[in-house]
Amino acid sequence: MNINKKIKKTYPSSEKIYIQGKLFDIAVPMRKITLTDTVDMVNGKRVFHPNSPVYVYDTSGVFTDKQQDVDLKKGLPRIREKWITERKDVEQLSTLSSEYGRKRMEDKTLDAIRFQHIAMPYKAKSGKRITQMAYAKQGIITAEMEYVAIRENQNAEAMEIDSYITPEFVRQEIAEGRAIIPANINHLECEPMIIGNAFLTKINTNIGNSALSSGIEEEVEKSLWSCYWGGDTLMDLSTGANIHETREWIIRNSPVPIGTVPIYQALEKVNGVAEDLTWEIYRDTLIEQCEQGVDYFTIHAGLLQEHIPLAAKRLTGIVSRGGSIIAKWCLHHKKENFLYTYFEEICEILKAYDTGVSLGDGLRPGSIHDANDAAQFGELKTIGQLTQIAWKHDVQVMIEGPGHVPMHKIKINVDKQKEYCHDAPFYTLGPLVTDIAPAYDHITSAIGASMIGWYGTAMLCYVTPKEHLGLPDKEDVRTGIITYKIAAHAADIAKGHPTAHIRDNAMSKARFEFRWKDQFSLALDPDKAYEFFKSRKGADEEESDFCTMCGPNFCAMRISKDVKDCVFPEENE
Amino acid sequence: MNINKKIKKTYPSSEKIYIQGKLFDIAVPMRKITLTDTVDMVNGKRVFHPNSPVYVYDTSGVFTDKQQDVDLKKGLPRIREKWITERKDVEQLSTLSSEYGRKRMEDKTLDAIRFQHIAMPYKAKSGKRITQMAYAKQGIITAEMEYVAIRENQNAEAMEIDSYITPEFVRQEIAEGRAIIPANINHLECEPMIIGNAFLTKINTNIGNSALSSGIEEEVEKSLWSCYWGGDTLMDLSTGANIHETREWIIRNSPVPIGTVPIYQALEKVNGVAEDLTWEIYRDTLIEQCEQGVDYFTIHAGLLQEHIPLAAKRLTGIVSRGGSIIAKWCLHHKKENFLYTYFEEICEILKAYDTGVSLGDGLRPGSIHDANDAAQFGELKTIGQLTQIAWKHDVQVMIEGPGHVPMHKIKINVDKQKEYCHDAPFYTLGPLVTDIAPAYDHITSAIGASMIGWYGTAMLCYVTPKEHLGLPDKEDVRTGIITYKIAAHAADIAKGHPTAHIRDNAMSKARFEFRWKDQFSLALDPDKAYEFFKSRKGADEEESDFCTMCGPNFCAMRISKDVKDCVFPEENE
Repeated sequence: MNINKKIKKTYPSSEKIYIQGKLFDIAVPMRKITLTDTVDMVNGKRVFHPNSPVYVYDTSGVFTDKQQDVDLKKGLPRIREKWITERKDVEQLSTLSSEYGRKRMEDKTLDAIRFQHIAMPYKAKSGKRITQMAYAKQGIITAEMEYVAIRENQNAEAMEIDSYITPEFVRQEIAEGRAIIPANINHLECEPMIIGNAFLTKINTNIGNSALSSGIEEEVEKSLWSCYWGGDTLMDLSTGANIHETREWIIRNSPVPIGTVPIYQALEKVNGVAEDLTWEIYRDTLIEQCEQGVDYFTIHAGLLQEHIPLAAKRLTGIVSRGGSIIAKWCLHHKKENFLYTYFEEICEILKAYDTGVSLGDGLRPGSIHDANDAAQFGELKTIGQLTQIAWKHDVQVMIEGPGHVPMHKIKINVDKQKEYCHDAPFYTLGPLVTDIAPAYDHITSAIGASMIGWYGTAMLCYVTPKEHLGLPDKEDVRTGIITYKIAAHAADIAKGHPTAHIRDNAMSKARFEFRWKDQFSLALDPDKAYEFFKSRKGADEEESDFCTMCGPNFCAMRISKDVKDCVFPEENE
Repeated sequence: MNINKKIKKTYPSSEKIYIQGKLFDIAVPMRKITLTDTVDMVNGKRVFHPNSPVYVYDTSGVFTDKQQDVDLKKGLPRIREKWITERKDVEQLSTLSSEYGRKRMEDKTLDAIRFQHIAMPYKAKSGKRITQMAYAKQGIITAEMEYVAIRENQNAEAMEIDSYITPEFVRQEIAEGRAIIPANINHLECEPMIIGNAFLTKINTNIGNSALSSGIEEEVEKSLWSCYWGGDTLMDLSTGANIHETREWIIRNSPVPIGTVPIYQALEKVNGVAEDLTWEIYRDTLIEQCEQGVDYFTIHAGLLQEHIPLAAKRLTGIVSRGGSIIAKWCLHHKKENFLYTYFEEICEILKAYDTGVSLGDGLRPGSIHDANDAAQFGELKTIGQLTQIAWKHDVQVMIEGPGHVPMHKIKINVDKQKEYCHDAPFYTLGPLVTDIAPAYDHITSAIGASMIGWYGTAMLCYVTPKEHLGLPDKEDVRTGIITYKIAAHAADIAKGHPTAHIRDNAMSKARFEFRWKDQFSLALDPDKAYEFFKSRKGADEEESDFCTMCGPNFCAMRISKDVKDCVFPEENE
């Protein structure tokens, strides 16, 4: 695979650093952005004032570490293996537990596309409670908890303030169900991260081949691309051929948690006929994916028979794939949703691997017309009940939310979610605040996402420009991610995150001082900012003292600097 | 000019219609979007249900009217000339009143670039109060008022509801200063529009050559491009050579109101040396531009000497060009801002042509760090005082606002603006909710713009992807406009505008029924939506019953339709 070279990438003026743990032998990555000096003229001489480096959260894994080699065929370093095995509550199995997993393993025709270094999975020893929530409830801080605490604390040291997130605080939030660390004991390559209202707002990206498109290499490349631009978690929504093998490649090479919607694969197994789905097939799929290392599952267990007539009255019915599959199954069999009836059994499976559950909103509105209706909130209430069942099993939970919601109806979604779901972290798709802008739905949804993030959503699922029109290509993924990094960061700023503004202020100072290079280094997308800057007409040098909007005679910032010198002349003397 | 052909353009499945006035002989343009039928299968036969057409606000002028020819050399039809002359309170001058205007007119070397059909300007007869506000205060409804009332009422008839905006309501809002119709008596080509919190949220676009770029033809083309995509007003911020001639071409061909910042041109006249600016030069510039037909001026009259030290303490000082020019002038001369001291004289000039004033926020924050500080709100208070002075002269007023503001600090901007400025319409730039995303500032600012629009801002000034990096090209203008159409529309939806949701619902219904063609016709950017749709892999026909996200087996919407049929089978029988 020539792809190994292709996927190594770096950020400008940046260095990957690692912070050592105090409780555990862990090394937490961060990106350190070095800035140039501020230059003043004093008595005709240039005087240099250094600018502090800015530390930013880094989701890119070893792919941006110049010191480390990457070989996609071997997968990433299994950093969590020691942490997990030292807890002595898991055992390595001698064979795969799922029938489907074994069948695929034995199928020689798949050798050509199979990941080569598959290790046997870990599973909780009988009677052991091994999830992060189980530890947290017992008052135990894990390596994962210290890891995320350090990770959330960028710039605290630089600002000479105390760490505002401590491992103990992380433990409390997880114990109370207000935050989750999605970290399957079989995703040993994962760099732990936390999702909760008290932490930095995260973003999820979706990739996945469909029957219509893309192969394994393309999907792996997209997943790394997602990490590079800042995706915090990644959902593999593949629905085409070789889902199992594609997923193995993605997980083995993913530094971020991987989520899936198991019912998609289950449906593949019954050739797309929803009515033919059974609990046994679904169950085997859960085990198959747990043993591969999927960190969280979207499960549409809250959609009950009684909700379906409510949705049928809508303008856009059911737009969730999982929701529509379940609705069809329920109507055909005239039975309650089997994900609901078997929910305790589901939790029994998940807790043995610490796979989290993301309770899916099968009845999310597909248009602003349908927002906040009885179907949506009815399902949410059921989801709240399921949350408590999952917690009883120490399964970590987050709650999925809409969708399409006009601005004035967004806040009530967060209020009701908190109330019904006992402060479990909220994970929303958008919401889109209008339906009339296909090709720009990353923007219509980022407006809603910023607001819902501010109101208290813990993770935002991105939307790309291709939403409603087609599958995103690499550039769409990049655009979607940067758009959602904006929404998440804007939410952090509005929520008063103690250090979120540091990057903004560094950018603004660089802007005021015409330090162009630093503006690119600090930008969410340095490459595009630089590309736009270079394309301006008449720009003959980088460090010009004006930008093209105004031209040399009209530059507000330059005049403003003159004004500053004039009002406070002592500053430069 | 081959450009005449180039600039004729149409919208898909659309027709330009005109609604006749009841009080005046006026024809108000609207775009009628025709939709395809909904097709159902009943007993194995196709049954067709027609879908009502959707009417949308149309800013594109005659450029999208298949029945009318366009000749940029002659300019647009002077539709307002009869309305204005029939009021018998204006006179046509025999020569230009401004010294500079006459000088340019006499300069033969400019013949090659000059617009060929310049008519002598109109001006109020001595003692006559001719502004829309003056009429409104006297209880008189003008043709312009009826025009905008009809224009604001799309879909009222189709919905079989009463007109929600009446000419009398328009008159009241203008009389009270809560709305303005920027319509200089010398911009006879202008299709009147209204800016106010009780009306549809509008968007402004900026164009203009700078010393570094672009010529007349390019600017005119950009202005028409702006109207095509939906810009409601247009500010010509040119700072380079031949500003006067460029402006003439733009105004004569503009169906939307044109705004300028006269101090830019005044500064050109003193070779860019702010200290050399005088009231006399500025005054002559105002008259020059009033007689060309500029509909509103940004005037930074609220920036006082006492505010400057407050701004000098900021992270990013003064980022408004006008503001920095004034600050420099004040500091050099140790005198109060002459725009403030001569404000009554300014109003005397403007009221003779019905040029509106947009009170500029010279101290708007240039970073989220500086948002809502003493400098910004100090200036806003002064602007509130000036508002009342302008109203005394019947000059129509709007108030400019920030800029860069984090989400949690946006609402207070609207609250203070309403309080200090007595409900005059608010006109904001963004605001950007974070500073770290150059190349994506159309998005960071659209988040703030949507929110501030919802809270009560009447017009949103667009931001393009090139903000902070360079001058926008045509594609950037399009992206900026569509992004701001989203923000404005999202605000209208959230404000509960009585018919704003009609286009959303039509789109959602088309989406649910897989009427792809209608989805493109209803989209804010039909071309880009279609382009994205066509680029999907494996799409062999347009009317396929699934989109690429899911593929044929997984299509939520298709399954959902099956579900609907299942729950309410009688609907299709």
